[in-house]
Amino acid sequence: MSPQSGRWLGLDIGGTTVKAGVVEPDGSWERSPEVLPTELAGGPAPFLDALADFARGFGAVNGIGIGCPGVFDPATGALRASANLQPLVGSILGPELEQRLGLPKGSVRVGNDANLAAYGEQWKGAGVGLDDLCLVTLGTGIGGGLILDGRLYGGTHGMACEIGHLVVVPREQGGLPCGCGSAGCLETFASATHARRRAREAGLTDDLEELCARGRAAEGPERALLHAIGRDLGRGLSYVVSLLDVTDFIVGGGFSGALDLLLPGIMETMEARRYGTPEPRVVRAALGEDAGWIGAARLAGDPA
Amino acid sequence: MSPQSGRWLGLDIGGTTVKAGVVEPDGSWERSPEVLPTELAGGPAPFLDALADFARGFGAVNGIGIGCPGVFDPATGALRASANLQPLVGSILGPELEQRLGLPKGSVRVGNDANLAAYGEQWKGAGVGLDDLCLVTLGTGIGGGLILDGRLYGGTHGMACEIGHLVVVPREQGGLPCGCGSAGCLETFASATHARRRAREAGLTDDLEELCARGRAAEGPERALLHAIGRDLGRGLSYVVSLLDVTDFIVGGGFSGALDLLLPGIMETMEARRYGTPEPRVVRAALGEDAGWIGAARLAGDPA
Repeated sequence: MSPQSGRWLGLDIGGTTVKAGVVEPDGSWERSPEVLPTELAGGPAPFLDALADFARGFGAVNGIGIGCPGVFDPATGALRASANLQPLVGSILGPELEQRLGLPKGSVRVGNDANLAAYGEQWKGAGVGLDDLCLVTLGTGIGGGLILDGRLYGGTHGMACEIGHLVVVPREQGGLPCGCGSAGCLETFASATHARRRAREAGLTDDLEELCARGRAAEGPERALLHAIGRDLGRGLSYVVSLLDVTDFIVGGGFSGALDLLLPGIMETMEARRYGTPEPRVVRAALGEDAGWIGAARLAGDPA
Repeated sequence: MSPQSGRWLGLDIGGTTVKAGVVEPDGSWERSPEVLPTELAGGPAPFLDALADFARGFGAVNGIGIGCPGVFDPATGALRASANLQPLVGSILGPELEQRLGLPKGSVRVGNDANLAAYGEQWKGAGVGLDDLCLVTLGTGIGGGLILDGRLYGGTHGMACEIGHLVVVPREQGGLPCGCGSAGCLETFASATHARRRAREAGLTDDLEELCARGRAAEGPERALLHAIGRDLGRGLSYVVSLLDVTDFIVGGGFSGALDLLLPGIMETMEARRYGTPEPRVVRAALGEDAGWIGAARLAGDPA
């Protein structure tokens, strides 16, 4: 499914700034050097006014896509929950923006930022040519997005791909409590946050860049820890393989710079759990911070 | 996605017999009282001849769907692997049957039987009205099928929904070896085979009907064991919820008669692992042995 020809604006609303860019009719794209501060102290209305002004600055477009962290109601498009954008919860961003910009109904589409990052990577990044893929973002937590049969898969309630909360070691077998209320979730093993915790517990530096530098420089406890974290990540990814027969993984997020050191462990566990499917491929995301707004721009161009 | 109007024949090739039936243009359906023995000792050709004769007996149809256990190559339609139908591996059943019946190219479609059972249940059974669902079949092993966004999801390599091989307790934490080469798979906890093993190990009858009868009659070790097996099943299903945001489950297969006794345990674990999604619904399959051929008939009517 490729977007209809047109000029599409993508907006990626983060906790501190809104990143944006345009995909042109010829497929080329450019991120705007300007960002809009995510200023929500005054409530949703002034922020949406500013967002409309910001969007207007990009000139005439055929449609606008908006990504942000949180859960959208698939039926109404309302933002149902968002830890980082609490004041926007309840807002139906599409019509709010259409009204302010005088655009026809349906011109502004919304989606979860991690899901849209997967959509962006498939369109213009590390997933070009793949019909099925799983994006995994390693950051404070672990999130991601799924492309299945060439389509962005959002789930029945807009909550698909909570890959960070796949239980890799059950509570009964010693899994640690997770912020979600469960225990032994993938996040508690392999997010940047928990990688730092594991480094501290092993008496190593909890600066992840430094940890990786040491791991690359020589064999030793740093490399061994990153190998072990990779093994745990592989446990999580193996559920995607068994359940969905998806074998292409794209790893993004702040901790993805460690992928070269995580990969041997990832492949080790995935190989041990593999059953019939071809060997998985795990590559690093290509678009970095652009994946989100590019995926949003693509969403804008999807057939209604 | 509803099948185009027409008269569709479904064939469900099992290890011992081929079950079949027709879905009429008005949507009504009937299973044939006759079955064809799955006689493969002479190789594929005589069996395919007999299958064509069998199909001919149903009169004129707009298309034919075939389900069987195994993995089909999504590109060619060739049966790539099948434990129970080994002599048919390598056959491209669609063209073989089209040729024998003088039907146009594309009139005969093929798919995995468990996937097609999910498709059948969604069309005419317990899944009517649901866009996303997971069918779980509890038998010798544990298999299933996924309907996502209203479509049958087969996976990149035709191997989706190996739900029986989701690892619920890793090898390192004591998971038992599984036939697939991994360890701690859902199957090793909750298939009919392993339910019997667990019953024996607990000093109880390994006749599952008798075990269930006793579990229903009174509190006691039988009910407790089935509750524990349900808890383990819930672990497996929770991966489907976390990864896909699918919350509707349909349970079929020979051991699904125990669902009333398994359900409290299933819900207990799923509740403990639930994170943001609504409470899952777990119901028993409605079509029994008809799900497979009905799903195959539906596949026959799908747009090309």
